[in-house]
Amino acid sequence: MSSLTVNLPQNSYEIAIASGNLSQLGSQMQQLNLGKKVLLISNPEIFNYYGDICLKSLENAGFEVFKHLIPAGETYKHLQSIEKVYDTALANRLERSSTLVALGGGVIGDMTGFAAATWLRGVNFVQVPTSLLAMVDASVGGKTGVNHPRGKNLIGAFYQPKLVLIDPDVLNTLPEREFRAGMAEVIKYGIIWDEDLFTKLEQASNIDSFQTIEQELLATILIRSCQAKADVVSQDEKESGIRAILNYGHTIGHAVESLTNYQEFVHGEAVAIGMVAAGKIAVNMGLWTATEAQRQDALIKKSQLPIEIPSTLKLNDILSTLQSDKKVKAGKVRFVLPTTIGKVIITDKVTEEVILKALY
Amino acid sequence: MSSLTVNLPQNSYEIAIASGNLSQLGSQMQQLNLGKKVLLISNPEIFNYYGDICLKSLENAGFEVFKHLIPAGETYKHLQSIEKVYDTALANRLERSSTLVALGGGVIGDMTGFAAATWLRGVNFVQVPTSLLAMVDASVGGKTGVNHPRGKNLIGAFYQPKLVLIDPDVLNTLPEREFRAGMAEVIKYGIIWDEDLFTKLEQASNIDSFQTIEQELLATILIRSCQAKADVVSQDEKESGIRAILNYGHTIGHAVESLTNYQEFVHGEAVAIGMVAAGKIAVNMGLWTATEAQRQDALIKKSQLPIEIPSTLKLNDILSTLQSDKKVKAGKVRFVLPTTIGKVIITDKVTEEVILKALY
Repeated sequence: MSSLTVNLPQNSYEIAIASGNLSQLGSQMQQLNLGKKVLLISNPEIFNYYGDICLKSLENAGFEVFKHLIPAGETYKHLQSIEKVYDTALANRLERSSTLVALGGGVIGDMTGFAAATWLRGVNFVQVPTSLLAMVDASVGGKTGVNHPRGKNLIGAFYQPKLVLIDPDVLNTLPEREFRAGMAEVIKYGIIWDEDLFTKLEQASNIDSFQTIEQELLATILIRSCQAKADVVSQDEKESGIRAILNYGHTIGHAVESLTNYQEFVHGEAVAIGMVAAGKIAVNMGLWTATEAQRQDALIKKSQLPIEIPSTLKLNDILSTLQSDKKVKAGKVRFVLPTTIGKVIITDKVTEEVILKALY
Repeated sequence: MSSLTVNLPQNSYEIAIASGNLSQLGSQMQQLNLGKKVLLISNPEIFNYYGDICLKSLENAGFEVFKHLIPAGETYKHLQSIEKVYDTALANRLERSSTLVALGGGVIGDMTGFAAATWLRGVNFVQVPTSLLAMVDASVGGKTGVNHPRGKNLIGAFYQPKLVLIDPDVLNTLPEREFRAGMAEVIKYGIIWDEDLFTKLEQASNIDSFQTIEQELLATILIRSCQAKADVVSQDEKESGIRAILNYGHTIGHAVESLTNYQEFVHGEAVAIGMVAAGKIAVNMGLWTATEAQRQDALIKKSQLPIEIPSTLKLNDILSTLQSDKKVKAGKVRFVLPTTIGKVIITDKVTEEVILKALY
């Protein structure tokens, strides 16, 4: 059992990581001085696997529990789904001291967090991530939100959970493709923050499947990834500075996701493609060595993740989509670029020419 | 020219009060290190009066300004109006450093604040209140939001403005009824916080019209009301404790508004009715003297505000509506009750019997 703390000026919180944690949800929440009512939010598949154990744990701890299911998938990540959560919250008379618990992947976590941030101007929020991606990335850091018809996560809020509870055992039911997608973010932490994590991944016999990965390595991955994210977020809660390094691979990744209408790639796959592209940009600008960029690309391939932008996408469309990214500042697209494994810089000095060269 | 500061752990901000301030909007915002783009949000009537002077001031200060109008009135205070703001923000490529400026009363302020809180997970926000109610209450304190079909302000966020800019001259175009409604909140500050303000209002020759009120008294009212609100909010940004005293008169007030479908009373009028009822409860519970309660009621009458619950409302409906109030904690309705002019307590020990007696 590992426990990390995300230290923030206000609203610090714990990330509890342990096999079998799901059945401890109620007792762990009991210690947080929350109100009696809990609304558990999930999707039907995840709830089918893990709903009962969570409900039981919460009820045994004395909570009055309600549930609300949202159909699975990014296509339901919109304001209309949030409005339905509001209706359930109202019907069950949730109060400001009540808690929304997100049981699911990044989509459920982002939506539940946004509903928690905006119902009664903010109720309590607990994350129980069930995908690798959500465990190492989405559930830590307080970014919540939904998609706008014309862009991903454009509507949202920074809102911190009271607790992130991670149980690696639940990855057993995660589709292998989703496991690999989560590994993209793990590799990202290796590049931007933790050279040692990167080396461990390189040395591992395999990292592309929950069924074959060593359990000890998986534990290390979860802890070090959450630690990396917690370190960065603690220094910069609302992305005014260093937090932007977490967007490594996401600038082009988001554009690829958006232009393929979120149909062709899951998020981690798009990030993998984005990291390879960002690596090329860094090499072309003389910031990073080709050798290290190749090590990154090799690790991405080892995870069975895609590395190439689909040839069906028009380069000009990618450039224009980059311009509408949330991270644009004074009209300039900002890139996170590696200088060595474990270290990156943020720059808005990437010319269109250099971007195009990397995209070919 | 007066300037007050709302001190918060993070996000402190100024309230600037001065005749002629509207034309200083651009230069005052210039000092805040905001991005270049500004989206001015207003309703057609207010924009017709004051839009041009604001736009000109902002443009002269070098901002690139867009506008978005929302039809006037509480009936448009819903999520669908916010979605239209998002669309305008997207069309004009607003960035995280951009600013939404609310030019209007409480409805425009609350909606603009909520849009600012949730677009790109938070852009900058400036309040330019044009009603007395918004000046002394809604614009200070960071409460933002919209109505749910079944309840007022159930959807929202705490989100602080970067600046509140008040120009008393704009009250010249405010309907008299709205001026009186704002006076209800001013009287509230007298009861809950500032005995001296209460006495000044008692001594004034009249307080029920902008056209006849002494300008010096009006300046005092604005400054002291904002100061009272700033004092309270500084101590308790998110209403976990003392801030709840600002809800004096609002518990029953909200129920009356809600049960009359927001058609019969404007907010301040409902608060006036709620204060009279809360006063009766306090007297009946032996917390407050009948003499002081009468002084409160006399001041409310002097402002030409209503004091009685409409006889068309059923008392049981009021009781049941109280139960769904945001301020309910562990199922108990909390009341703010005066103990002397300038001082109140918060209690959940008011029995239904006592409530019913006060409502008769």
